[in-house]
Amino acid sequence: MSSSWTTFGGDLHLDLTERRAAGTGLRAALEDALREAVQDGRLAPGTRLPSSRALGEDLGIARNTVVEAYGQLTAEGWLTARQGSGTTVAQRTAPRPGRRPARPTAARHDVRHDLMSGRPDLSLFPRTAWLAAARRALATAPHDAFGYGSPLGRIELRQALTDYLARVRGVRTDPDHLLLCTGVTQGLGLVCAALRERGARTLAVESYGLPPQHDGVRAAGLGILPLPLDEAGARVDRLDTRPGAVLLTPAHQFPTGAPLAPDRRAAAVRWARERNGYVIEDDYDGEFRYDRQPLGAMQALDPERVVYAGTAAKSLAPGLRLAWLALPDALVEPVARLKSLADGMSPVLDQLTLAELITSGTYDRHVRRCRLHYRRRRDQLVAALAEHAPHVRITGIAAGLHAVVQLPPGATPEAELLARAGAAGISLNGLSWHRADPAEAGPDTAPALVIGYATPPDRDFPAALAALCELLRTA
Amino acid sequence: MSSSWTTFGGDLHLDLTERRAAGTGLRAALEDALREAVQDGRLAPGTRLPSSRALGEDLGIARNTVVEAYGQLTAEGWLTARQGSGTTVAQRTAPRPGRRPARPTAARHDVRHDLMSGRPDLSLFPRTAWLAAARRALATAPHDAFGYGSPLGRIELRQALTDYLARVRGVRTDPDHLLLCTGVTQGLGLVCAALRERGARTLAVESYGLPPQHDGVRAAGLGILPLPLDEAGARVDRLDTRPGAVLLTPAHQFPTGAPLAPDRRAAAVRWARERNGYVIEDDYDGEFRYDRQPLGAMQALDPERVVYAGTAAKSLAPGLRLAWLALPDALVEPVARLKSLADGMSPVLDQLTLAELITSGTYDRHVRRCRLHYRRRRDQLVAALAEHAPHVRITGIAAGLHAVVQLPPGATPEAELLARAGAAGISLNGLSWHRADPAEAGPDTAPALVIGYATPPDRDFPAALAALCELLRTA
Repeated sequence: MSSSWTTFGGDLHLDLTERRAAGTGLRAALEDALREAVQDGRLAPGTRLPSSRALGEDLGIARNTVVEAYGQLTAEGWLTARQGSGTTVAQRTAPRPGRRPARPTAARHDVRHDLMSGRPDLSLFPRTAWLAAARRALATAPHDAFGYGSPLGRIELRQALTDYLARVRGVRTDPDHLLLCTGVTQGLGLVCAALRERGARTLAVESYGLPPQHDGVRAAGLGILPLPLDEAGARVDRLDTRPGAVLLTPAHQFPTGAPLAPDRRAAAVRWARERNGYVIEDDYDGEFRYDRQPLGAMQALDPERVVYAGTAAKSLAPGLRLAWLALPDALVEPVARLKSLADGMSPVLDQLTLAELITSGTYDRHVRRCRLHYRRRRDQLVAALAEHAPHVRITGIAAGLHAVVQLPPGATPEAELLARAGAAGISLNGLSWHRADPAEAGPDTAPALVIGYATPPDRDFPAALAALCELLRTA
Repeated sequence: MSSSWTTFGGDLHLDLTERRAAGTGLRAALEDALREAVQDGRLAPGTRLPSSRALGEDLGIARNTVVEAYGQLTAEGWLTARQGSGTTVAQRTAPRPGRRPARPTAARHDVRHDLMSGRPDLSLFPRTAWLAAARRALATAPHDAFGYGSPLGRIELRQALTDYLARVRGVRTDPDHLLLCTGVTQGLGLVCAALRERGARTLAVESYGLPPQHDGVRAAGLGILPLPLDEAGARVDRLDTRPGAVLLTPAHQFPTGAPLAPDRRAAAVRWARERNGYVIEDDYDGEFRYDRQPLGAMQALDPERVVYAGTAAKSLAPGLRLAWLALPDALVEPVARLKSLADGMSPVLDQLTLAELITSGTYDRHVRRCRLHYRRRRDQLVAALAEHAPHVRITGIAAGLHAVVQLPPGATPEAELLARAGAAGISLNGLSWHRADPAEAGPDTAPALVIGYATPPDRDFPAALAALCELLRTA
């Protein structure tokens, strides 16, 4: 008698109890409740109301009472009755009362040329192939795939990745040592939390990296300890003697671009063995290498000492939040337990879809197409800078989706260059933004920009390139 | 000269450098590298190798060298050459060497009748409708939907949920106060972490609840403080006077089933206001109510003091890991910041799909269909127990996907009953498993079972019901 939870067009919660208790008549209580639902926006303009019969039954009141209430509200302009299409909520132009105003969004920069690093060209996302794979996955998944499952993630994707990562990156793992997570951000956080449980208090990182990643490390309870970089990658000889771990980007140092030299890879693994520590290998763009160099995953050197982290963020899209960890045996239990506490497991549908995409060979073809696309972009960038800004030096271009442009000593200071870029509508970061320890200032503080040449869609790339050349021409 | 990353059929990493450095000839080095890739499983049986021309180009070596290497390995049985279909990896039956054996999976119980609570009937997942909505979402999403976005989640779903929750549950919120998370587990963890930052050290919980949820609260750094339950829900008059928060299931106490009485709802909100604390409302099955009772969300009493948590885990599937928080203004910044640190944001494709499902009305129709389905199940359960086990008392059946079956004092003790259930292949929990403080033993410790009557698919439900009746008949 006092509420309804069912209508023809959708569910609606109406509460007549309080009004009835306060002595209001049945019809008046219903009118009040409907009026309020329209007024506060729960019933949006255009919403079709249930038939008087249906609402009467749901509320356990006479149909005529509903008819009368609808009639009254139609007369008042709240509702609209149209022959054949029932009763709907009237269109109004006034804002919905009772709602707090939307918070003002932060003033957006006038970004005309997006060269921010770390993002792929989102227009390449293979929508059709993804949907086709999702269809196959939905058609074949057992019912229990939609339920609660292992914190490691769906076996289908762990199996597909085991084979794929072995073939493409030389990773040595198996489905029982792979954990699927929502982005490398989460994976790194889980590993850091597991290391902290085991007594680690710091994580060595490369002196230039991704500041939000450093924030994540700190949030997981570890201090960061920057390692200097040179042409051969991180100076792993400076690793602390305390037990702990080091985060490296061996395939393509982020953002400076050097691959970690073979002897340093071996030295880092040796250090981890001796100190009972771990190397975390962030293979963020390992699939995008444009020239001939042997750069298998460092993880293959010692799967029990190297945590391998990979992601679909660059090869497909960051919005998928799909990443994976190949874990040493000793870390499987703690990381899976922490994953379980954090969110149970990762969403399954995208996992099943990616497994389909990989096993069908579509993923390989997509990655190859993207690689050609980005290599062309890179070549255009290199050629344009050679022509229009021959005084700059471009590094880190053998792989990945970004390059570092270094200006000669005495050129425009980085901060001023970035201000000019902003004024020209170019969005990018200076190299110094990537410094792990912002206080540190070494000999490598000559002005430099990090160029995400993969970011803009094709139609915007020529203009972005021209704007960048113009900026650097006079820098 | 020393590696390859491209083949026709897919990517493959081959490293010849070390072998060359060790003095091995070019052809022998290539043969060794291929042999090893087959042996350790990186090249799976049946994989098609690139043409000799393509591999030669990739490696920067003469095509003939590749032809000779392929010939040698074919002679050795590693590869198979077939006219017209190129060179493939030979089928072998031996296990892949170099792989660690799969860890033995825990001995599975012989579950024939799954009546474990907390899960919907997964055979109801609307695969076709979901795929159709995914197609629409993929067809219309802007490119930047696939990129990094707000930690709150996609605006499309936040907008759709604002309207849906207002209409169906009376929730008063807006898109700027909704945060999309991967399950209530994650949402609760984030809120607890935010409360801890603000000085909270404990969270009051109902004395019976979900132990994994309690573990999550503790992992976020809060101690739990159980509140007794009675027929009107949690005894909120026992709330501590310290600032803090309380986790409640007002619509349908989990698992005992009582709705929280109106005066207790008001008292809890008053307590939160006075102590500068918060109520967390876990509306885990608010859409599944079978009888006429006014049970809007408690959040509407004070959106600035009640955090509303909802989920698609019961209405669609737990595997989606899709849940939402309607947050008080003061908690938006801390919770969004912690979400950003935890995993950046939730995966977008399922968000866009659910938004489509809701705005098209398909979600409402699906929920209504499920509600009828589960109500029928509940009625069958009640009828069967009335007939075959009239001595038991069944409670908490006005809503939700589970019921509590209470046995009379002096009946078979709970532990023995559960052992008998296990022997009969019935999977379910005793009520005592849900106790927040396992040490506590009160007057409510008469044997009781929690029956998840929604869990089995239709074809298995009659047998599960019969097995349960048989178990209880003699209990």
